Amino acid sequence: MTGRLWGLGVGPGDPELVTLKAYRLLRRADVVAWFAATARESNARRAVAVHLRPGQDELPLIYPVTTEQLPAHVSYEALLVKFYDEAAARIGAVLDTGRDVAVLCEGDPLFYGSYMYLHNRLAGYYEHEVVPGVPSMLAGAAVLGAPLVSLNEVLSVLSGVLPAEELHRRLLGADAVVIMKLGRNLSKVRDCVERAGLLPRAWYVERATMDAQRVLPLADADPTEAPYFSLVVIPSATAPQR
Amino acid sequence: MTGRLWGLGVGPGDPELVTLKAYRLLRRADVVAWFAATARESNARRAVAVHLRPGQDELPLIYPVTTEQLPAHVSYEALLVKFYDEAAARIGAVLDTGRDVAVLCEGDPLFYGSYMYLHNRLAGYYEHEVVPGVPSMLAGAAVLGAPLVSLNEVLSVLSGVLPAEELHRRLLGADAVVIMKLGRNLSKVRDCVERAGLLPRAWYVERATMDAQRVLPLADADPTEAPYFSLVVIPSATAPQR
Repeated sequence: MTGRLWGLGVGPGDPELVTLKAYRLLRRADVVAWFAATARESNARRAVAVHLRPGQDELPLIYPVTTEQLPAHVSYEALLVKFYDEAAARIGAVLDTGRDVAVLCEGDPLFYGSYMYLHNRLAGYYEHEVVPGVPSMLAGAAVLGAPLVSLNEVLSVLSGVLPAEELHRRLLGADAVVIMKLGRNLSKVRDCVERAGLLPRAWYVERATMDAQRVLPLADADPTEAPYFSLVVIPSATAPQR
Repeated sequence: MTGRLWGLGVGPGDPELVTLKAYRLLRRADVVAWFAATARESNARRAVAVHLRPGQDELPLIYPVTTEQLPAHVSYEALLVKFYDEAAARIGAVLDTGRDVAVLCEGDPLFYGSYMYLHNRLAGYYEHEVVPGVPSMLAGAAVLGAPLVSLNEVLSVLSGVLPAEELHRRLLGADAVVIMKLGRNLSKVRDCVERAGLLPRAWYVERATMDAQRVLPLADADPTEAPYFSLVVIPSATAPQR
Protein backbone atom coordinates (compact mmCIF):
# COMPACT_ATOMS: atom_id res chain seq x y z
CA MET A 1 0.00 0.00 0.00
CA THR A 2 1.44 3.34 -1.06
CA GLY A 3 0.65 6.55 0.82
CA ARG A 4 -1.72 9.28 -0.27
CA LEU A 5 -0.78 12.68 -1.73
CA TRP A 6 -2.76 15.68 -0.48
CA GLY A 7 -2.41 19.15 -1.97
CA LEU A 8 -3.71 21.43 0.77
CA GLY A 9 -4.70 25.02 0.14
CA VAL A 10 -3.95 26.76 3.44
CA GLY A 11 -5.45 30.13 2.57
CA PRO A 12 -4.04 33.66 2.52
CA GLY A 13 -2.05 33.70 5.77
CA ASP A 14 -4.36 33.93 8.78
CA PRO A 15 -4.15 30.46 10.40
CA GLU A 16 -7.91 30.64 10.98
CA LEU A 17 -8.58 30.85 7.23
CA VAL A 18 -7.63 27.20 6.79
CA THR A 19 -10.61 24.97 5.97
CA LEU A 20 -11.77 22.27 8.37
CA LYS A 21 -10.71 19.72 5.77
CA ALA A 22 -7.20 21.08 5.24
CA TYR A 23 -6.83 21.22 9.02
CA ARG A 24 -7.93 17.59 9.42
CA LEU A 25 -5.63 16.27 6.69
CA LEU A 26 -2.72 18.40 7.87
CA ARG A 27 -3.01 16.90 11.34
CA ARG A 28 -3.39 13.40 9.92
CA ALA A 29 -0.47 13.57 7.46
CA ASP A 30 2.59 11.50 8.23
CA VAL A 31 4.81 14.03 6.46
CA VAL A 32 4.17 17.71 5.75
CA ALA A 33 5.99 19.09 2.69
CA TRP A 34 6.36 22.76 1.80
CA PHE A 35 8.20 25.03 -0.60
CA ALA A 36 10.46 27.85 0.54
CA ALA A 37 13.08 30.17 -0.88
CA THR A 38 16.65 29.71 0.37
CA ALA A 39 17.05 31.08 3.90
CA ARG A 40 13.43 32.21 4.01
CA GLU A 41 10.58 30.88 6.09
CA SER A 42 7.99 29.03 4.01
CA ASN A 43 4.94 31.25 3.51
CA ALA A 44 2.59 28.28 3.44
CA ARG A 45 4.14 26.71 6.53
CA ARG A 46 3.87 29.95 8.49
CA ALA A 47 0.12 30.09 7.79
CA VAL A 48 -0.40 26.75 9.54
CA ALA A 49 2.56 26.50 11.93
CA VAL A 50 0.24 26.70 14.94
CA HIS A 51 -1.71 23.70 13.62
CA LEU A 52 1.19 21.27 13.17
CA ARG A 53 1.46 18.35 15.55
CA PRO A 54 4.50 18.57 17.85
CA GLY A 55 7.30 16.65 16.17
CA GLN A 56 5.33 16.11 12.97
CA ASP A 57 7.69 15.07 10.15
CA GLU A 58 8.41 17.78 7.61
CA LEU A 59 9.90 17.73 4.13
CA PRO A 60 11.28 21.13 3.06
CA LEU A 61 11.50 21.77 -0.69
CA ILE A 62 13.94 24.66 -1.15
CA TYR A 63 13.94 26.49 -4.49
CA PRO A 64 17.43 26.57 -6.01
CA VAL A 65 16.77 30.09 -7.38
CA THR A 66 14.07 32.73 -6.98
CA THR A 67 14.26 36.00 -8.87
CA GLU A 68 18.01 36.70 -8.86
CA GLN A 69 20.01 37.28 -12.03
CA LEU A 70 21.52 34.08 -13.35
CA PRO A 71 24.65 33.71 -15.51
CA ALA A 72 23.73 33.91 -19.21
CA HIS A 73 24.34 30.20 -19.84
CA VAL A 74 22.03 29.05 -17.01
CA SER A 75 18.35 28.54 -17.82
CA TYR A 76 15.96 29.44 -15.03
CA GLU A 77 13.33 27.14 -16.55
CA ALA A 78 15.72 24.19 -16.78
CA LEU A 79 16.78 24.65 -13.15
CA LEU A 80 13.16 24.61 -12.04
CA VAL A 81 12.24 21.55 -14.09
CA LYS A 82 15.12 19.70 -12.44
CA PHE A 83 14.05 20.99 -9.02
CA TYR A 84 10.43 19.85 -9.47
CA ASP A 85 11.59 16.48 -10.80
CA GLU A 86 13.72 15.98 -7.71
CA ALA A 87 11.02 17.26 -5.34
CA ALA A 88 8.49 14.86 -6.88
CA ALA A 89 10.98 12.00 -6.57
CA ARG A 90 11.54 12.78 -2.89
CA ILE A 91 7.80 12.84 -2.19
CA GLY A 92 7.30 9.69 -4.26
CA ALA A 93 9.92 7.92 -2.17
CA VAL A 94 7.96 8.77 0.99
CA LEU A 95 4.64 7.69 -0.56
CA ASP A 96 6.28 4.40 -1.58
CA THR A 97 6.85 3.61 2.10
CA GLY A 98 3.09 3.88 2.67
CA ARG A 99 3.18 7.23 4.43
CA ASP A 100 0.71 10.03 3.57
CA VAL A 101 2.19 13.36 2.45
CA ALA A 102 0.45 16.74 2.71
CA VAL A 103 1.90 19.44 0.47
CA LEU A 104 1.11 22.90 1.84
CA CYS A 105 0.12 25.65 -0.61
CA GLU A 106 -0.50 29.28 0.28
CA GLY A 107 -3.91 30.28 -1.08
CA ASP A 108 -5.12 27.51 -3.37
CA PRO A 109 -3.01 24.66 -4.79
CA LEU A 110 -4.08 25.09 -8.43
CA PHE A 111 -4.30 28.89 -8.58
CA TYR A 112 -0.74 29.87 -9.56
CA GLY A 113 0.55 27.34 -7.00
CA SER A 114 3.76 25.34 -7.24
CA TYR A 115 1.87 22.27 -6.06
CA MET A 116 0.64 21.80 -9.63
CA TYR A 117 4.15 20.78 -10.74
CA LEU A 118 4.18 17.97 -8.18
CA HIS A 119 0.59 17.02 -9.01
CA ASN A 120 1.37 16.74 -12.73
CA ARG A 121 4.28 14.42 -11.93
CA LEU A 122 2.72 12.26 -9.19
CA ALA A 123 -1.06 12.12 -9.55
CA GLY A 124 -0.90 9.41 -12.18
CA TYR A 125 0.84 7.05 -9.76
CA TYR A 126 -0.59 7.69 -6.29
CA GLU A 127 -3.98 8.16 -4.65
CA HIS A 128 -4.37 11.91 -4.34
CA GLU A 129 -6.73 14.72 -3.43
CA VAL A 130 -6.61 18.49 -3.86
CA VAL A 131 -8.24 20.57 -1.12
CA PRO A 132 -9.12 24.03 -2.45
CA GLY A 133 -8.28 27.05 -0.34
CA VAL A 134 -9.15 30.71 0.08
CA PRO A 135 -7.10 32.67 -2.48
CA SER A 136 -5.28 35.86 -1.50
CA MET A 137 -7.38 37.96 -3.89
CA LEU A 138 -10.56 37.18 -1.94
CA ALA A 139 -8.76 37.99 1.31
CA GLY A 140 -7.83 41.29 -0.33
CA ALA A 141 -11.45 42.05 -1.21
CA ALA A 142 -12.52 41.10 2.32
CA VAL A 143 -10.09 43.48 4.01
CA LEU A 144 -11.12 46.22 1.57
CA GLY A 145 -14.76 45.43 2.35
CA ALA A 146 -15.48 46.02 -1.33
CA PRO A 147 -17.42 43.80 -3.74
CA LEU A 148 -14.85 42.22 -6.06
CA VAL A 149 -17.32 41.36 -8.84
CA SER A 150 -21.08 41.62 -9.00
CA LEU A 151 -23.89 40.88 -11.45
CA ASN A 152 -22.41 40.15 -14.88
CA GLU A 153 -19.06 41.85 -14.46
CA VAL A 154 -15.91 40.18 -15.75
CA LEU A 155 -13.01 39.54 -13.39
CA SER A 156 -9.54 39.57 -14.95
CA VAL A 157 -6.69 38.11 -12.93
CA LEU A 158 -3.38 39.32 -14.32
CA SER A 159 0.30 38.74 -13.56
CA GLY A 160 2.44 41.80 -12.95
CA VAL A 161 5.17 40.06 -14.94
CA LEU A 162 3.26 40.62 -18.20
CA PRO A 163 4.73 43.24 -20.56
CA ALA A 164 3.39 46.78 -20.08
CA GLU A 165 1.60 46.77 -23.44
CA GLU A 166 -0.29 43.59 -22.65
CA LEU A 167 -1.15 44.78 -19.14
CA HIS A 168 -2.45 48.04 -20.59
CA ARG A 169 -4.56 46.27 -23.20
CA ARG A 170 -6.04 43.87 -20.65
CA LEU A 171 -6.81 46.71 -18.25
CA LEU A 172 -8.68 48.69 -20.91
CA GLY A 173 -11.22 45.90 -21.40
CA ALA A 174 -11.61 45.10 -17.72
CA ASP A 175 -14.46 45.43 -15.24
CA ALA A 176 -12.79 44.24 -12.04
CA VAL A 177 -9.10 43.33 -11.87
CA VAL A 178 -6.65 41.59 -9.59
CA ILE A 179 -2.93 41.84 -10.33
CA MET A 180 -0.70 39.24 -8.71
CA LYS A 181 3.11 38.82 -8.79
CA LEU A 182 3.96 42.46 -8.19
CA GLY A 183 7.48 42.24 -6.77
CA ARG A 184 9.78 44.44 -8.87
CA ASN A 185 6.90 45.07 -11.30
CA LEU A 186 4.96 47.37 -8.99
CA SER A 187 6.12 50.58 -10.66
CA LYS A 188 5.27 49.28 -14.14
CA VAL A 189 1.90 48.02 -12.91
CA ARG A 190 1.08 51.36 -11.34
CA ASP A 191 1.91 53.18 -14.58
CA CYS A 192 -0.29 50.82 -16.61
CA VAL A 193 -3.22 51.20 -14.21
CA GLU A 194 -2.87 54.98 -14.35
CA ARG A 195 -2.63 55.04 -18.15
CA ALA A 196 -5.81 52.94 -18.34
CA GLY A 197 -7.60 55.50 -16.17
CA LEU A 198 -8.16 53.03 -13.34
CA LEU A 199 -5.91 54.52 -10.66
CA PRO A 200 -8.79 56.16 -8.72
CA ARG A 201 -10.39 52.72 -8.25
CA ALA A 202 -7.18 50.76 -7.53
CA TRP A 203 -5.96 49.51 -4.15
CA TYR A 204 -2.65 48.10 -3.04
CA VAL A 205 -3.06 45.30 -0.48
CA GLU A 206 -0.10 43.76 1.32
CA ARG A 207 -0.24 40.66 3.53
CA ALA A 208 -4.05 40.58 3.68
CA THR A 209 -5.32 38.88 6.89
CA MET A 210 -1.79 38.71 8.36
CA ASP A 211 -0.49 40.72 11.31
CA ALA A 212 1.53 43.08 9.13
CA GLN A 213 -1.42 43.78 6.78
CA ARG A 214 -1.29 47.09 4.84
CA VAL A 215 -4.04 48.55 2.65
CA LEU A 216 -3.66 51.80 0.72
CA PRO A 217 -4.70 53.41 -2.54
CA LEU A 218 -2.35 52.21 -5.29
CA ALA A 219 -1.68 55.90 -5.99
CA ASP A 220 -0.04 56.14 -2.56
CA ALA A 221 1.98 52.89 -2.72
CA ASP A 222 5.76 53.14 -2.66
CA PRO A 223 6.78 52.12 -6.21
CA THR A 224 9.82 50.15 -5.07
CA GLU A 225 9.73 46.40 -4.64
CA ALA A 226 6.51 44.90 -3.24
CA PRO A 227 6.72 41.81 -1.01
CA TYR A 228 5.56 38.38 -2.13
CA PHE A 229 2.18 38.67 -0.41
CA SER A 230 0.89 41.75 -2.20
CA LEU A 231 -1.83 42.45 -4.72
CA VAL A 232 -3.43 45.22 -6.68
CA VAL A 233 -7.22 45.04 -6.47
CA ILE A 234 -9.58 47.08 -8.66
CA PRO A 235 -12.96 46.16 -7.20
CA SER A 236 -16.34 46.02 -8.87
CA ALA A 237 -17.51 49.22 -10.54
CA THR A 238 -20.49 48.94 -8.15
CA ALA A 239 -18.21 49.34 -5.10
CA PRO A 240 -18.67 52.59 -3.18
CA GLN A 241 -16.01 55.02 -4.47
CA ARG A 242 -13.48 56.36 -2.01
CA MET B 1 -23.98 48.47 22.22
CA THR B 2 -25.14 47.29 18.80
CA GLY B 3 -24.40 43.83 17.51
CA ARG B 4 -21.78 42.88 14.92
CA LEU B 5 -22.38 41.98 11.27
CA TRP B 6 -20.39 39.07 9.87
CA GLY B 7 -20.42 38.12 6.19
CA LEU B 8 -19.29 34.50 6.19
CA GLY B 9 -18.06 32.74 3.07
CA VAL B 10 -19.05 29.11 3.62
CA GLY B 11 -17.30 27.65 0.58
CA PRO B 12 -18.51 25.60 -2.36
CA GLY B 13 -20.82 23.12 -0.64
CA ASP B 14 -18.83 20.50 1.26
CA PRO B 15 -19.38 21.35 4.95
CA GLU B 16 -15.70 20.60 5.54
CA LEU B 17 -14.64 23.39 3.18
CA VAL B 18 -15.71 26.03 5.68
CA THR B 19 -12.78 27.88 7.26
CA LEU B 20 -12.02 27.59 10.97
CA LYS B 21 -12.93 31.27 11.29
CA ALA B 22 -16.29 31.04 9.55
CA TYR B 23 -17.06 27.98 11.69
CA ARG B 24 -16.18 29.83 14.90
CA LEU B 25 -18.26 32.92 14.05
CA LEU B 26 -21.15 30.83 12.78
CA ARG B 27 -21.30 28.99 16.10
CA ARG B 28 -20.96 32.22 18.04
CA ALA B 29 -23.60 34.22 16.11
CA ASP B 30 -26.84 35.04 17.90
CA VAL B 31 -28.71 35.00 14.59
CA VAL B 32 -27.81 33.26 11.32
CA ALA B 33 -29.24 34.92 8.19
CA TRP B 34 -29.33 33.37 4.73
CA PHE B 35 -30.79 33.98 1.29
CA ALA B 36 -33.01 31.46 -0.48
CA ALA B 37 -35.36 31.31 -3.43
CA THR B 38 -39.04 30.77 -2.68
CA ALA B 39 -39.74 27.17 -1.65
CA ARG B 40 -36.09 26.21 -2.10
CA GLU B 41 -33.54 25.25 0.51
CA SER B 42 -30.84 27.89 0.95
CA ASN B 43 -27.65 26.77 -0.79
CA ALA B 44 -25.47 28.52 1.75
CA ARG B 45 -27.41 27.13 4.70
CA ARG B 46 -27.18 23.59 3.36
CA ALA B 47 -23.38 23.87 3.21
CA VAL B 48 -23.21 24.49 6.97
CA ALA B 49 -26.42 22.94 8.31
CA VAL B 50 -24.41 20.32 10.21
CA HIS B 51 -22.48 23.08 11.99
CA LEU B 52 -25.46 25.08 13.34
CA ARG B 53 -26.13 25.01 17.06
CA PRO B 54 -29.37 23.22 17.95
CA GLY B 55 -32.08 25.85 18.16
CA GLN B 56 -29.81 28.62 16.84
CA ASP B 57 -31.92 31.58 15.71
CA GLU B 58 -32.22 31.96 11.95
CA LEU B 59 -33.34 34.82 9.74
CA PRO B 60 -34.44 33.64 6.26
CA LEU B 61 -34.22 36.21 3.47
CA ILE B 62 -36.44 34.93 0.67
CA TYR B 63 -36.01 36.45 -2.81
CA PRO B 64 -39.32 37.77 -4.16
CA VAL B 65 -38.34 36.65 -7.68
CA THR B 66 -35.56 34.60 -9.25
CA THR B 67 -35.41 34.08 -13.00
CA GLU B 68 -39.09 33.82 -13.94
CA GLN B 69 -40.70 36.09 -16.53
CA LEU B 70 -42.24 39.17 -14.96
CA PRO B 71 -45.14 41.26 -16.30
CA ALA B 72 -43.82 43.99 -18.60
CA HIS B 73 -44.55 46.79 -16.13
CA VAL B 74 -42.61 45.16 -13.26
CA SER B 75 -38.90 45.92 -12.98
CA TYR B 76 -36.77 43.06 -11.73
CA GLU B 77 -34.13 45.54 -10.58
CA ALA B 78 -36.61 47.64 -8.62
CA LEU B 79 -38.03 44.54 -6.90
CA LEU B 80 -34.54 43.51 -5.83
CA VAL B 81 -33.58 46.96 -4.56
CA LYS B 82 -36.71 46.94 -2.40
CA PHE B 83 -35.93 43.39 -1.23
CA TYR B 84 -32.34 44.26 -0.23
CA ASP B 85 -33.54 47.43 1.51
CA GLU B 86 -36.01 45.41 3.55
CA ALA B 87 -33.50 42.62 4.26
CA ALA B 88 -30.94 45.18 5.47
CA ALA B 89 -33.59 46.81 7.66
CA ARG B 90 -34.49 43.46 9.22
CA ILE B 91 -30.85 42.70 9.96
CA GLY B 92 -30.30 46.22 11.25
CA ALA B 93 -33.20 45.78 13.65
CA VAL B 94 -31.53 42.68 15.09
CA LEU B 95 -28.14 44.41 15.35
CA ASP B 96 -29.83 47.30 17.15
CA THR B 97 -30.82 44.91 19.94
CA GLY B 98 -27.13 44.11 20.48
CA ARG B 99 -27.23 40.68 18.88
CA ASP B 100 -24.55 39.53 16.41
CA VAL B 101 -25.73 38.44 12.94
CA ALA B 102 -23.85 36.06 10.63
CA VAL B 103 -24.93 36.24 6.98
CA LEU B 104 -24.12 33.00 5.17
CA CYS B 105 -22.74 33.20 1.63
CA GLU B 106 -22.03 30.23 -0.63
CA GLY B 107 -18.45 30.52 -1.89
CA ASP B 108 -17.15 33.95 -0.97
CA PRO B 109 -19.24 36.94 0.19
CA LEU B 110 -17.77 39.49 -2.24
CA PHE B 111 -17.35 37.28 -5.30
CA TYR B 112 -20.75 37.63 -7.04
CA GLY B 113 -22.43 37.20 -3.63
CA SER B 114 -25.69 38.80 -2.51
CA TYR B 115 -24.09 39.65 0.82
CA MET B 116 -22.50 42.69 -0.84
CA TYR B 117 -25.93 44.37 -1.08
CA LEU B 118 -26.37 44.08 2.67
CA HIS B 119 -22.77 45.14 3.30
CA ASN B 120 -23.16 48.28 1.18
CA ARG B 121 -26.27 49.22 3.19
CA LEU B 122 -25.11 48.30 6.72
CA ALA B 123 -21.31 48.49 6.99
CA GLY B 124 -21.35 52.25 7.54
CA TYR B 125 -23.44 51.85 10.69
CA TYR B 126 -22.35 48.66 12.43
CA GLU B 127 -19.14 46.89 13.41
CA HIS B 128 -18.59 44.33 10.65
CA GLU B 129 -16.21 41.77 9.23
CA VAL B 130 -16.07 39.80 5.99
CA VAL B 131 -14.63 36.28 6.18
CA PRO B 132 -13.45 35.18 2.74
CA GLY B 133 -14.36 31.70 1.54
CA VAL B 134 -13.33 29.08 -1.00
CA PRO B 135 -15.00 30.00 -4.31
CA SER B 136 -16.76 27.37 -6.41
CA MET B 137 -14.32 27.86 -9.29
CA LEU B 138 -11.40 26.62 -7.17
CA ALA B 139 -13.48 23.66 -6.03
CA GLY B 140 -14.08 23.00 -9.73
CA ALA B 141 -10.35 23.04 -10.48
CA ALA B 142 -9.69 20.78 -7.47
CA VAL B 143 -12.17 18.11 -8.58
CA LEU B 144 -10.74 18.30 -12.12
CA GLY B 145 -7.24 17.98 -10.65
CA ALA B 146 -6.13 20.50 -13.28
CA PRO B 147 -4.06 23.66 -12.79
CA LEU B 148 -6.45 26.58 -13.21
CA VAL B 149 -3.76 29.18 -13.96
CA SER B 150 0.01 28.96 -13.87
CA LEU B 151 3.02 31.20 -14.47
CA ASN B 152 1.86 34.43 -16.13
CA GLU B 153 -1.43 33.21 -17.57
CA VAL B 154 -4.50 35.43 -17.36
CA LEU B 155 -7.66 34.10 -15.72
CA SER B 156 -10.95 35.50 -17.05
CA VAL B 157 -14.05 34.92 -14.97
CA LEU B 158 -17.15 35.44 -17.10
CA SER B 159 -20.90 35.39 -16.55
CA GLY B 160 -22.95 33.15 -18.83
CA VAL B 161 -25.55 35.93 -18.92
CA LEU B 162 -23.28 38.05 -21.15
CA PRO B 163 -24.35 38.39 -24.79
CA ALA B 164 -22.90 35.77 -27.16
CA GLU B 165 -20.78 38.35 -29.00
CA GLU B 166 -19.13 39.57 -25.82
CA LEU B 167 -18.59 36.03 -24.55
CA HIS B 168 -16.98 35.11 -27.86
CA ARG B 169 -14.71 38.15 -27.83
CA ARG B 170 -13.62 37.53 -24.23
CA LEU B 171 -12.96 33.86 -24.94
CA LEU B 172 -10.73 34.67 -27.91
CA GLY B 173 -8.32 36.62 -25.73
CA ALA B 174 -8.33 34.18 -22.84
CA ASP B 175 -5.73 31.88 -21.33
CA ALA B 176 -7.78 30.16 -18.62
CA VAL B 177 -11.50 30.77 -18.19
CA VAL B 178 -14.27 30.16 -15.68
CA ILE B 179 -17.87 30.78 -16.72
CA MET B 180 -20.40 31.21 -13.91
CA LYS B 181 -24.18 31.72 -14.01
CA LEU B 182 -24.90 29.07 -16.61
CA GLY B 183 -28.58 28.27 -15.96
CA ARG B 184 -30.51 28.69 -19.18
CA ASN B 185 -27.38 30.07 -20.86
CA LEU B 186 -25.58 26.74 -21.07
CA SER B 187 -26.40 26.15 -24.73
CA LYS B 188 -25.25 29.66 -25.74
CA VAL B 189 -22.09 29.28 -23.64
CA ARG B 190 -21.27 25.95 -25.24
CA ASP B 191 -21.67 27.46 -28.73
CA CYS B 192 -19.40 30.37 -27.85
CA VAL B 193 -16.72 28.11 -26.41
CA GLU B 194 -16.84 25.92 -29.52
CA ARG B 195 -16.70 28.91 -31.88
CA ALA B 196 -13.64 30.18 -30.01
CA GLY B 197 -11.93 26.81 -30.55
CA LEU B 198 -11.79 26.05 -26.83
CA LEU B 199 -14.23 23.12 -26.61
CA PRO B 200 -11.48 20.45 -26.44
CA ARG B 201 -10.13 22.11 -23.26
CA ALA B 202 -13.50 22.90 -21.61
CA TRP B 203 -15.10 21.06 -18.71
CA TYR B 204 -18.59 21.22 -17.26
CA VAL B 205 -18.58 20.88 -13.46
CA GLU B 206 -21.79 20.56 -11.47
CA ARG B 207 -22.05 20.72 -7.65
CA ALA B 208 -18.28 20.45 -7.11
CA THR B 209 -17.44 18.90 -3.70
CA MET B 210 -21.09 18.03 -3.02
CA ASP B 211 -22.58 14.53 -2.97
CA ALA B 212 -24.26 14.91 -6.38
CA GLN B 213 -21.05 16.18 -8.04
CA ARG B 214 -20.80 15.68 -11.83
CA VAL B 215 -17.78 16.38 -14.03
CA LEU B 216 -17.78 15.94 -17.79
CA PRO B 217 -16.32 17.47 -20.94
CA LEU B 218 -18.44 20.49 -21.92
CA ALA B 219 -18.85 18.82 -25.32
CA ASP B 220 -20.83 16.04 -23.60
CA ALA B 221 -22.98 18.26 -21.34
CA ASP B 222 -26.73 18.27 -21.87
CA PRO B 223 -27.43 21.73 -23.32
CA THR B 224 -30.67 22.21 -21.38
CA GLU B 225 -30.78 24.15 -18.15
CA ALA B 226 -27.83 23.80 -15.79
CA PRO B 227 -28.42 23.94 -12.02
CA TYR B 228 -27.32 26.87 -9.88
CA PHE B 229 -24.14 25.17 -8.72
CA SER B 230 -22.53 24.63 -12.11
CA LEU B 231 -19.52 26.04 -13.92
CA VAL B 232 -17.57 25.82 -17.11
CA VAL B 233 -13.85 25.56 -16.46
CA ILE B 234 -11.18 25.93 -19.15
CA PRO B 235 -8.02 25.16 -17.19
CA SER B 236 -4.49 26.40 -17.74
CA ALA B 237 -2.99 25.71 -21.15
CA THR B 238 -0.31 23.83 -19.18
CA ALA B 239 -2.85 21.30 -17.89
CA PRO B 240 -2.44 17.78 -19.24
CA GLN B 241 -4.83 17.46 -22.22
CA ARG B 242 -7.54 14.82 -22.05
